[in-house]
Amino acid sequence: MQDNQVQIFDTTLRDGEQVPGCKLDTKQKLVIAERLDVLGVNVIEAGFPVSSPGDFISVTEIAKIVKNATVCGLTRAVENDIKVAADALKYANFPRIHTGIGTSDSHIKFKFNSTRDKVIERAVNAVKYAKSFVQDVEFYAEDAGRTDNDFLAKVCEEVIKAGATVLNIPDTTGYCLPEEYGAKMKYLKENVKGIDKAILSCHCHNDLGMATANSIAGVINGARQIECTINGIGERAGNTALEEVVMILKQHPYLNLETSINTKLLYDTSIMVRESMGMPVQPNKAIVGANAFAHSSGIHQDGVIKNRETYEIMDPEEVGVTESAIVLTARSGRAALAYRAKKIGYELTKIQLDEAYKEFLNTADKQKEVKDNDIHIIMKEVNKTSKIAIA
Amino acid sequence: MQDNQVQIFDTTLRDGEQVPGCKLDTKQKLVIAERLDVLGVNVIEAGFPVSSPGDFISVTEIAKIVKNATVCGLTRAVENDIKVAADALKYANFPRIHTGIGTSDSHIKFKFNSTRDKVIERAVNAVKYAKSFVQDVEFYAEDAGRTDNDFLAKVCEEVIKAGATVLNIPDTTGYCLPEEYGAKMKYLKENVKGIDKAILSCHCHNDLGMATANSIAGVINGARQIECTINGIGERAGNTALEEVVMILKQHPYLNLETSINTKLLYDTSIMVRESMGMPVQPNKAIVGANAFAHSSGIHQDGVIKNRETYEIMDPEEVGVTESAIVLTARSGRAALAYRAKKIGYELTKIQLDEAYKEFLNTADKQKEVKDNDIHIIMKEVNKTSKIAIA
Repeated sequence: MQDNQVQIFDTTLRDGEQVPGCKLDTKQKLVIAERLDVLGVNVIEAGFPVSSPGDFISVTEIAKIVKNATVCGLTRAVENDIKVAADALKYANFPRIHTGIGTSDSHIKFKFNSTRDKVIERAVNAVKYAKSFVQDVEFYAEDAGRTDNDFLAKVCEEVIKAGATVLNIPDTTGYCLPEEYGAKMKYLKENVKGIDKAILSCHCHNDLGMATANSIAGVINGARQIECTINGIGERAGNTALEEVVMILKQHPYLNLETSINTKLLYDTSIMVRESMGMPVQPNKAIVGANAFAHSSGIHQDGVIKNRETYEIMDPEEVGVTESAIVLTARSGRAALAYRAKKIGYELTKIQLDEAYKEFLNTADKQKEVKDNDIHIIMKEVNKTSKIAIA
Repeated sequence: MQDNQVQIFDTTLRDGEQVPGCKLDTKQKLVIAERLDVLGVNVIEAGFPVSSPGDFISVTEIAKIVKNATVCGLTRAVENDIKVAADALKYANFPRIHTGIGTSDSHIKFKFNSTRDKVIERAVNAVKYAKSFVQDVEFYAEDAGRTDNDFLAKVCEEVIKAGATVLNIPDTTGYCLPEEYGAKMKYLKENVKGIDKAILSCHCHNDLGMATANSIAGVINGARQIECTINGIGERAGNTALEEVVMILKQHPYLNLETSINTKLLYDTSIMVRESMGMPVQPNKAIVGANAFAHSSGIHQDGVIKNRETYEIMDPEEVGVTESAIVLTARSGRAALAYRAKKIGYELTKIQLDEAYKEFLNTADKQKEVKDNDIHIIMKEVNKTSKIAIA
């Protein structure tokens, strides 16, 4: 691995799936996992195997089908968790066990009723035990964002000695400012003995809207892995959005940090996750929101293509937003409707288009966004009056 | 104004309303403007008066009813724009004209086909002309994010001499990283002669998901105004989200930066804007998303209230999220449904609750979120079988 490569660790299927109303079955998870592999993520966190028989099966099946990415299973610093995870990962080409424990005083006191020394001991034992099954062991220091740097560095040193290959430094509560989170990474990079044997990883939550900026501050200051989800889904206000950090690194080449993501698949992957999880993406969501490139459709219509760079920093096609991907609304014209209808198989005459457009505006007024599914319904209506040709 | 006060400049009704499918009529704008005034924003950007007769009327009417906040109208660096804005603002208790021009080479060349000197001349003339109508004149240097600091400082110096009271430094394309944007503010604070006579203002766009972090970097480095919108709405990926920057400053008291916002009104204001503009807020939106405090409802049910601080950095009530504000989904139980039904006026018997819960799950499966309106419909169904008492 080159030093300017940032590993993308996708946790859509674990931290992302931990959302009220978001439960996926194994089949749905397999579809997403295959897609993440093609997208080019380096690690797929497939689940928390000990948590339920369903999750165990999902991790097992994902481990079987993923070709290129490392497949990772979450555990607590508990022997049985680790054993079960190892079992679920046994068919993976590249298995990783992700184990860890809370290191902030708040976690040590309220969650474990324990002491700092005992927490280090449990951490070291968990890593050693995980190493008895797999080479690649990631350790998370839960609530690292509120753990003082001195103690955090000590924990990191000990788990590296025990064999940890990746150190996950989560801002569990989403409280850090980018400066602070970056400074924490810098401190660890400079003060942890043996740090060159492991990769520092950013795991940020979005409670205050800064998960993305914190992750970027992390890699600027020495981290080389970002844990993230498609559309930034996840508990509460969610995790770092994969599409955002990937595009930031791509659009700022002077940072000299790269990922292996095929960015042209970002938009379609976003839709896949949104639809299968039933988690809507707001129109003003960066990169993948319906309005994220709203300018370009306007520009397209007005023919002011010359000015594009004046207002846009990305070509929508770089993230897979093609004309046909733009959501139709009441502002869309007849040409846009005809174009989209043709894309999905209908060749309209002028009279049919007039009628379809009337129906279209009714639908758009009711529900703002008109999707392909709605267009099929509209075409059915029009078909009652006159037969539409197949495009 | 104290040095640690950050002015909140709300542009929901101008930059926020500039969104496809988001057009509000004057009546709707007045409701939102009154609410923003009560929320405690310092400045309400009410519109772009010259852009249409409707916008002119909206700004005029808003200027009449707003009591405490400054009311601001946008203009280009064009005499007629400024004259029309002054006219629209004549009834305001505290009027502000917001004028400006693009200062990046890209804007100077492609948008104006002009030179740097001519752009400065136009900027100075616009500010002077605006000053002939009002005392409070804000100048925006469009695309400041891509304007080199040296030239930007020169523009700032000249418009301060001409009487500008606020200098808006927009990252128009949403490209800056927090470090860069903060450094730009620091540079201006340190290098612009007469900078103490004006307030530096952050105006960030969210194309890469960093508007909030950039605005915070701006105020940490000397800016004292943030331009933002409720729910972060706005063109493309939107503007800085008001609720996020306000809560970041509140939750980081060591920054010693304050706003005058009554945070308990944030959630209701978010709903008002979402509903009247028809712009959905995703469940994982920070602060105001339906899941932003999803933990607390879980905690409430599980009785593990002792651990709240282990995972939460804010009390949901601080932003006005009370139990009754939590959205019902298929995961909600009978108790939650009965509680909510009672809140809106229905006292259910056990048998009625059973029937209502069946209907409720049907609705929840179809549309994920069940709103008060849906509950009224469900109650109508139940009423067909047995009469429900009024709570």
